[in-house]
Order: sequence, then structure tokens, then C-alpha cells
Amino acid sequence: MGHLKHLVIPKFKEGVVVEEIMKGMEKLVSELDTVKSFEWGKDIGSQEMRRQGFTHAFLVTFQKEEDFTSFLDHPSHVEFSPTFSATIEKIVLLDFHAVLGKAPA
Amino acid sequence: MGHLKHLVIPKFKEGVVVEEIMKGMEKLVSELDTVKSFEWGKDIGSQEMRRQGFTHAFLVTFQKEEDFTSFLDHPSHVEFSPTFSATIEKIVLLDFHAVLGKAPA
Repeated sequence: MGHLKHLVIPKFKEGVVVEEIMKGMEKLVSELDTVKSFEWGKDIGSQEMRRQGFTHAFLVTFQKEEDFTSFLDHPSHVEFSPTFSATIEKIVLLDFHAVLGKAPA
Repeated sequence: MGHLKHLVIPKFKEGVVVEEIMKGMEKLVSELDTVKSFEWGKDIGSQEMRRQGFTHAFLVTFQKEEDFTSFLDHPSHVEFSPTFSATIEKIVLLDFHAVLGKAPA
């Protein structure tokens, strides 16, 4: 089974300083060994109609599902969650085992 | 600047056979050199309320933004798009330059 990916698609409330949120998030994932890797990005706006107000994507990768569960229950994550939630107008969360449909050359 | 990631979050219509769609998608990305890699997955359902009906994530990675533009305009993609769109009830699309917040160990 592939790595477990935790995908977070937020729409931040107006006035939120995303850079501040990112500092907290990078600190969180860097401190926790259960997090294998973390990638994120800001939508470039080429298909604005179809992003439906969502502006960022956060992708946290775990070696296995148990690591993801440990991450969710970890005191640092439990502490960070309400801080993050307070900045969110709406959100989509998806958790999936990654299937590699085309490997990087 | 990081790789350009094209993130597709679909909610398929009822009765759609996702395996059929995946065959078309894997064929498409495998044939096009502009696509660096392709990963996808099906939500494991642990946070059903927060996935808002979306069930899958598709993540197409390009070396650079120009490759993404070429991909969008390629006849194979132009041909595949309406087939894919016909299976979709709703969708979120995000395109972003990936920032590596934590590198894999």
C-alpha cells in the first residue's frame, strides 16, 4: 500500500496572514518524525472559476496510516488544530493511499 | 521555483466506474513527456464530513509551468477532457508551484 497522503484544501478568511500559518505548520511537521514529507503551494489562478475560492493546497505524506493516526493524536497537532481552524472559511480534507500512476523519470 | 502541480479533486456522478476513468488518465499521462509524474488516490473516509462529497485526488506534476500549458493544449488532453468532465458532478482544481516544507528523510 502506498504512502498515506493527508490533503488539506483551505479557503482562508479575509485578512489572514498565510505566512504566519505556514510558520506554525512547518514547525509542526518538522518536529514530528511521523511526518515523512510536507509540500504546499498557492494556486496560480489560471483556472480561477474552478478553484471555487480555495487558494492553497497542503500535502502531508506519512509512511503508513498508523503514522497519520499518531500525528492526529499528537499534542502538538492537537494544540495547532484550533489555531489553524480559526483562520479557515471553508475546507476540504482528503486522506488517501497514494497510487503512483506515472513514476518520475 | 518548484514543480508545477495540477491538483484535481472530483466528485464523480453516481454509477461512474472510476477504474475506467483511471485507465484513460494513466494512458494520457504515460504518453505525454511533459508529465513528469502522476499520483492519485481514493479517500479512506476517516473524515467523511470534511471531504464534502469529494472522493478522489489526482496530482499531476510538471517540471515547469510551460510543460503544464503544453499539456493542457495537447490534442490528447483536449480529447480526454470532455470524457472526464462528463463523469463529474463537481470539481475543485488548483495549480501551484510546490514548496517543499519538509524534505523526505
